[in-house]
Amino acid sequence: MKPAKFIVVEGLEGAGKSTAINAVLNVLQQAGVDSIKHTREPGGTVLAEKLRELVKQEHEGEVLQDMTELLMMYASRVQLVENVIKPALESGTWVVGDRHDMSSQAYQGGGRQIPKATMKALRGTTLGEFKPDFTLYLDLDPRIGLERARGRGELDRIEKMDMGFFDRTRERYLEIAAADSSIVVINAEQDMDKVAADIAAALQQWLETQ
Amino acid sequence: MKPAKFIVVEGLEGAGKSTAINAVLNVLQQAGVDSIKHTREPGGTVLAEKLRELVKQEHEGEVLQDMTELLMMYASRVQLVENVIKPALESGTWVVGDRHDMSSQAYQGGGRQIPKATMKALRGTTLGEFKPDFTLYLDLDPRIGLERARGRGELDRIEKMDMGFFDRTRERYLEIAAADSSIVVINAEQDMDKVAADIAAALQQWLETQ
Repeated sequence: MKPAKFIVVEGLEGAGKSTAINAVLNVLQQAGVDSIKHTREPGGTVLAEKLRELVKQEHEGEVLQDMTELLMMYASRVQLVENVIKPALESGTWVVGDRHDMSSQAYQGGGRQIPKATMKALRGTTLGEFKPDFTLYLDLDPRIGLERARGRGELDRIEKMDMGFFDRTRERYLEIAAADSSIVVINAEQDMDKVAADIAAALQQWLETQ
Repeated sequence: MKPAKFIVVEGLEGAGKSTAINAVLNVLQQAGVDSIKHTREPGGTVLAEKLRELVKQEHEGEVLQDMTELLMMYASRVQLVENVIKPALESGTWVVGDRHDMSSQAYQGGGRQIPKATMKALRGTTLGEFKPDFTLYLDLDPRIGLERARGRGELDRIEKMDMGFFDRTRERYLEIAAADSSIVVINAEQDMDKVAADIAAALQQWLETQ
């Protein structure tokens, strides 16, 4: 049996991650992968979901420091990686993640402008060498994504940031993708059908090399 | 006006930190310090208190990873330092803390055996050069402290650890104190009156040098 893989879908608000994940699951099932776990970040364990709620909420007007946000994201991620993702992969179950570490690099590193050296140090301290086998980054202009996200209801604390924040986040996403051959950029401004087709093609191509 | 100072009381469960803090407050008031803020860790802000609750609770049997515990402690600490302690000191208010970073060094570094390099890196990343001006470490055999703490009611997740954990925590406390002249070790196995008198003497002596 081929070893189980960790595949991640990344992108800004409204990029179409849910649709993309369904496309990924379809391709994997057609490829004969019968044991798949779906995770999301922040969250995915009892404690991590509580941290997700805390990091997305307002706290009686208290300033949530950028470093605190980053530490809470990593606290959630460590719980998910150690308690869910690693055990799944070790037992032969594939994992499909709705966001992972690239989100912190892009949002807290790019958007919040936490220095790259800090980001690298914290990632090394908490995750070591662990990383996804394959990542699909859904790229789109944040103006389009936020318009879609607003259509779905109220925005959370992070989704309420200014456009400069989202532009920096997208820029960092693209910069990381350009430097890492395990990350494929998908044009998420296209029709959902075309996005799903591009995802399927990219994933199938990658699977053939595994 | 002399600049405001950050004074911390540290020690194991049942060491008598509450009594010690009262002794500190008395000495400061007698010395003419009229603006004093009292903090506790983890906690001390709206969000930090929610993190305190999460880190002390059980989560439906989920393993709380040592690294997660450490990240949550630092998330709480960053909120308290940036939103409460630094603004207080800058406005001339003295701060008396029930625990601070030395607790993480001792409990997560010593007790949980997280490597010293990791502890140092995370401290630098989150706090930079910020540290207390003066620390009173209440030293006692953990067997005595836990006996006292048990008398007060149910133990939380961390207080339920084995004795080896608390022995390692005490050992690290003493090791840190031996290397830092701003930390005074108080024998907390004595009667409470004697402990309070030792604290008052040590604090008064330090204040005279400021």
